[in-house]
Amino acid sequence: MADDQDSEQRPPISRELLKWISREYFDMNGSSYHVLDRPPTPLEFARLVHLSRPVVIKGVECPALTKWTDDYLVQMMGDQSISVAVTPNGRADAVTRAPDGKLYFAEPFIDSMTLRDLFEKLRSGDTNVYYLQSQNGNVYSQDFFSDGEDASEFASLRADVPPEVDFVRDALDRTPDAVNLWIGGSDSVTSIHSDSYENMYTVVRGTKHFTLLPPSEGWCLQERLYPHAVYTRELDLLPSHEASPVRWSSVSDPDLPDALPPEAHPIQITLTAGDTLYLPVGWWHFVRQSGDVTIALNWWYDAELEGVNWVWLNMLRGDHVL
Amino acid sequence: MADDQDSEQRPPISRELLKWISREYFDMNGSSYHVLDRPPTPLEFARLVHLSRPVVIKGVECPALTKWTDDYLVQMMGDQSISVAVTPNGRADAVTRAPDGKLYFAEPFIDSMTLRDLFEKLRSGDTNVYYLQSQNGNVYSQDFFSDGEDASEFASLRADVPPEVDFVRDALDRTPDAVNLWIGGSDSVTSIHSDSYENMYTVVRGTKHFTLLPPSEGWCLQERLYPHAVYTRELDLLPSHEASPVRWSSVSDPDLPDALPPEAHPIQITLTAGDTLYLPVGWWHFVRQSGDVTIALNWWYDAELEGVNWVWLNMLRGDHVL
Repeated sequence: MADDQDSEQRPPISRELLKWISREYFDMNGSSYHVLDRPPTPLEFARLVHLSRPVVIKGVECPALTKWTDDYLVQMMGDQSISVAVTPNGRADAVTRAPDGKLYFAEPFIDSMTLRDLFEKLRSGDTNVYYLQSQNGNVYSQDFFSDGEDASEFASLRADVPPEVDFVRDALDRTPDAVNLWIGGSDSVTSIHSDSYENMYTVVRGTKHFTLLPPSEGWCLQERLYPHAVYTRELDLLPSHEASPVRWSSVSDPDLPDALPPEAHPIQITLTAGDTLYLPVGWWHFVRQSGDVTIALNWWYDAELEGVNWVWLNMLRGDHVL
Repeated sequence: MADDQDSEQRPPISRELLKWISREYFDMNGSSYHVLDRPPTPLEFARLVHLSRPVVIKGVECPALTKWTDDYLVQMMGDQSISVAVTPNGRADAVTRAPDGKLYFAEPFIDSMTLRDLFEKLRSGDTNVYYLQSQNGNVYSQDFFSDGEDASEFASLRADVPPEVDFVRDALDRTPDAVNLWIGGSDSVTSIHSDSYENMYTVVRGTKHFTLLPPSEGWCLQERLYPHAVYTRELDLLPSHEASPVRWSSVSDPDLPDALPPEAHPIQITLTAGDTLYLPVGWWHFVRQSGDVTIALNWWYDAELEGVNWVWLNMLRGDHVL
């Protein structure tokens, strides 16, 4: 998810300068967020993208919001096989201690099952944790937007998911890079990370809890290089000796007391069904969910590489701190 | 013009990091600029403000463009007194060597005259250099926009100058902070500096030559603290012992060979009558003009303080470089 554009290694930056940058940013921006009662116009949204601050938007239209009961979804999906992440602890793509006592960046086992199976597992209290989070454009992929067609495990649900968010398309003058469906239960957590996309995130059912930090406070997250590992079908964590180490936050739960230094100003946002979060490029996010079955959709748009913001993010993402 | 918002002194930044920032910015943005054949829509302009890159815009409507002959202006202004900057060399608000051998930041003598007088001086080849550049909102000031009225030496010309640029108002959702009239000849030069405003700059008559550098290349301009001085009526340069020193670029003409280091990527833009330049906040600009009488108007809009760009500019403007 963290993206590496080709760019020259950033020279060292002092912790003192990083702290100054995050203080200046906080002084000018605070830690509040806007809630819009209705979708913005394209012009209003263009202004919000310029500010690059999180915004909760009510009333974004999506047929899934009213149609997606369990019965409807199971009927529409039938025997279609879907890819589901499985872990023993609900922490896919997260720093995890293996039986050898070492910490790894752990990728989930990816199992194939029907949506009917997934719902059963989510409701049955299976000891393993299942999360549909394939996030590869599982509803509409880049190929859909460039070539007009692609393979999707969720093709039968597409009529309920607009490929584009109209006001975002008009504001950014671009189509999404990927549209994803997320289905999971309260045991699934997304570890804190940032993406190189502008993100529109709509909760369809259930409740999602986001903890956000601005890009300027990334230094609070103690990123380190962790060796890579993958869960086997038996959910043993198997080090992947050929994969490169992964740079990831050492903070496994930013909501715990003292997990973050006093200089961090986390923003807590809870979304319920029908709420859409505009999560700007480069913002750090930790995501929990509550309820048996939480369903969400997200639209990822490529970030603007021209202008100041991309260089700003690259500077803050660099790993060499004095 | 350079603005000091209250903010804590920035810790030292290394020259190596500044060079990396300016290389990254150049790699992502190049040194080209867009030319629009017609004014943008508010949405298009909001996108341009987000990029914060200079843009030349054709066809911005302004009655002054067709009405402002010498005869018309002299007739409309009559005996109204106007404030004109006078220097022996055309360099108002510039680093200048005084007879004592030292370098000063020199402010012009401000003389009062009629517009008729100014035109005569500009056309007569007077050895002194006259430039109407009062830039205090001489056409419409902040009071005009907040209270609906203000004093202006150019009140009689207001019918020819729209107080707002429509697409800018709609894009930024704000009124200008100041609208200024500029009248000068080919001997007047504006030394390189940056402003804390978004600037719309329209040439009404004559030709203006801009040399621009992005905020990321400010370190190429060798800013130093210079003691302050003011020209007397006799155009002697008088040190002002009570004024604070002024931080200003040591590069007196960035267009000279070797005036800038090889890491700088200046953008040269020439505007003729009817052209408007969108000059984004924080961009460095050096301005020359050609022709007997060059007339221009500009609309200054307060910069957005929320978001990333203001912190970015503050970081780059800080003076402590290791």
